[in-house]
Amino acid sequence: MTQPLRIGIAGLGTVGAGTVKLLQEHDALLAQRCGRAIKVTAVSARERKRDRGIDLAGYRWHDDPLKLAEDPDVDVVAELIGGSDGVAKALVEKSIAGRKHVVTANKALLAMHGTALARLAEAAGVTLAYEAAVAGGIPVIKNFREGLAANRIERVYGILNGTCNYILTTMRKTGREFADVLAEAQKLGYAEADPSFDVDGVDAAHKLAILTSVAFGCEVNFAGIHVEGIRHISATDIAYAEELGYRIKLLGIARLTEFGIEQRVHPCMVPLGTPIAHVEGVFNAVVTEGDYVGQNVAEGRGAGAGPTASAVVSDLIDIARGRTLPAFSIPAAQLQKLPVSPMERHRGAYYIRLMVVDRPGVIADVTAALRDEEVSLEAMLQRGRAPDEAVPVVLTTHNAVEASMRRALARIENLKTVVEPPRLIRVETL
Amino acid sequence: MTQPLRIGIAGLGTVGAGTVKLLQEHDALLAQRCGRAIKVTAVSARERKRDRGIDLAGYRWHDDPLKLAEDPDVDVVAELIGGSDGVAKALVEKSIAGRKHVVTANKALLAMHGTALARLAEAAGVTLAYEAAVAGGIPVIKNFREGLAANRIERVYGILNGTCNYILTTMRKTGREFADVLAEAQKLGYAEADPSFDVDGVDAAHKLAILTSVAFGCEVNFAGIHVEGIRHISATDIAYAEELGYRIKLLGIARLTEFGIEQRVHPCMVPLGTPIAHVEGVFNAVVTEGDYVGQNVAEGRGAGAGPTASAVVSDLIDIARGRTLPAFSIPAAQLQKLPVSPMERHRGAYYIRLMVVDRPGVIADVTAALRDEEVSLEAMLQRGRAPDEAVPVVLTTHNAVEASMRRALARIENLKTVVEPPRLIRVETL
Repeated sequence: MTQPLRIGIAGLGTVGAGTVKLLQEHDALLAQRCGRAIKVTAVSARERKRDRGIDLAGYRWHDDPLKLAEDPDVDVVAELIGGSDGVAKALVEKSIAGRKHVVTANKALLAMHGTALARLAEAAGVTLAYEAAVAGGIPVIKNFREGLAANRIERVYGILNGTCNYILTTMRKTGREFADVLAEAQKLGYAEADPSFDVDGVDAAHKLAILTSVAFGCEVNFAGIHVEGIRHISATDIAYAEELGYRIKLLGIARLTEFGIEQRVHPCMVPLGTPIAHVEGVFNAVVTEGDYVGQNVAEGRGAGAGPTASAVVSDLIDIARGRTLPAFSIPAAQLQKLPVSPMERHRGAYYIRLMVVDRPGVIADVTAALRDEEVSLEAMLQRGRAPDEAVPVVLTTHNAVEASMRRALARIENLKTVVEPPRLIRVETL
Repeated sequence: MTQPLRIGIAGLGTVGAGTVKLLQEHDALLAQRCGRAIKVTAVSARERKRDRGIDLAGYRWHDDPLKLAEDPDVDVVAELIGGSDGVAKALVEKSIAGRKHVVTANKALLAMHGTALARLAEAAGVTLAYEAAVAGGIPVIKNFREGLAANRIERVYGILNGTCNYILTTMRKTGREFADVLAEAQKLGYAEADPSFDVDGVDAAHKLAILTSVAFGCEVNFAGIHVEGIRHISATDIAYAEELGYRIKLLGIARLTEFGIEQRVHPCMVPLGTPIAHVEGVFNAVVTEGDYVGQNVAEGRGAGAGPTASAVVSDLIDIARGRTLPAFSIPAAQLQKLPVSPMERHRGAYYIRLMVVDRPGVIADVTAALRDEEVSLEAMLQRGRAPDEAVPVVLTTHNAVEASMRRALARIENLKTVVEPPRLIRVETL
């Protein structure tokens, strides 16, 4: 048996501690599967004394995580600190410079600096692996780089944030409003005290940026993503979605259009008959459409100590087995710089909810605005009557251009009988 | 750039022709992703002149597929002939002996001779890869060998036969009976003229045997699988399943029990709230339960030229990149010989449908038989009355031992008021 692969773990939070636990518990199993042992040799975290429920006695302790990059007994640095810059970035760069392989769960770092880090790793001849950065335990990066690599990818979309999916699922099941369910999710530990990173779509966008790069062979471009979160989704919208045969999901979607690469994160109406509609609670899922394989769905837990540790260790297994690939599947120098397909040129169907004064002529004004912008109506629903009071009206459209839709909505918002800003949710054809 | 990887294709049916087409169409893409070209150099099939919609002009033609094993311009033989023995087996053995890598889509061959072939390949230092043999385009073998390899697998189950799933889905959606839907599937080309291989569960069992080996690190044991097909599923059962909150799916299931390895293929009642219940039509899905990753679902097209070619070529990509692993993840000599956990000792819940004469006392006789065998009743449904005529009665049980259940059913079948053999469908806790 060859020499053990020696791991230095930076960060002993949930994921770091979970990774150490897995490597300890499955020591023999991993040695059998890899043909060599995978051993933690050094760790680094802020508080040395904290009880993490794992035995750290045999490992060298570094107060400064950057020391892992210099530790001669470390072959691979597992960066499990997080954050797009600061010490996490410094550690990854220094580890690569020190010709150590790097495994990371850090989506923000890769979304911001993925292409540059991939170049550094290739130049140094080391692996930069990040299975845990996207969709937790689901081996989705491996799917793109290997399992589905025979395909030209046509579209990728997914539920990439478990907090949002938990909130939307709970809203649907209980009929409660966003703020109420969010507060409960915070109490249960499913949402952070500052939830904006999750509920405003930023976390999903980080993951989408990475997926897009590995799926389409282009440079990571987080700034090119159109991002909307779920704060404006109401219980009313969820109930209407159900009535119309849809569920509302926060999706990250990437595809090539005639204008370039389209990347967007926003709430979608997805048809009830599609697999993604049934991905509920904290589960994540990624759907890949390849030209030969057709539709491929990968679903699993997107966060948590166990699933994330599973993904981190799968990268360590690849390294232990001597399997390495360019970070984004093809050499970084060959990654394309694709133009951003602007959201204004997006074509799709739309759900619009208006609060209007229940008075004759209102619908005529609304539909005239749509007609003038060449947005063609598919259906209209107005439930209940309350003369001269505000009532919801729901419209769905056929495929239309986003810019036209926005112009029509601006006109509609200015109507005196429309008493709240219109709500728009895109209907996704899956 | 290194030398091209040279492929010899044996069999130019749907899968073989699809593989050639993919390799031709994605020539440049694959060369970029692999760092070297993947080139077909030789082919073999029965009829040379048949039009397959692909250009074979540049390839050496062998009337005898075994010649591929000797062709000096072939590095990898892709065995796409099929069948558990005969020429397919001879070709794989001869190719390995000639130190050529082998990629195959042949589930029957691996289910029968997988362990022996894995030993031969290891001894010769070549790769034996078979992603296409299980669940078509879904990279499920790669999931077990790599993506989820950090986990001890607790249970694997899946929808492994698209024909059966298409029939069950259509029966549910139309209310029609098995024979009727099967005849239509045959007309549409979704089922073979002789459908027994599919509808009696044999094809699913071949795939399960392979999955079990790679998931649990044991020798392939097709003979140890309990196999039942879907011929006895009636429209009545499907309607009752729906009413009780279930769907009926043909599942292949493997898990470790206190008695050994349990492998079974049979129709199951699966709860509507589970991902597998929503896998419909010709789609396949594999659910993995790992101790760290939790539940992981992979869904996609399980058959057809495109998805199968995608899987075959993913294996070729691995070989082109110089990535090789033992066929069943760990060296063949280390695969365990696990005892078979007998079906009689299986514990689970059951759905039973009886046709009984509608007469006082019948239910008392039935429930007495269950009580005597210590089978505890969960629910009983009798819809409609028709005094002195045959009516369906449906029972569901709590967890019980299969042997007890069978004894109770034998007693029930002998009751004078029970006019048809009882139907049993296992309820799976997922």
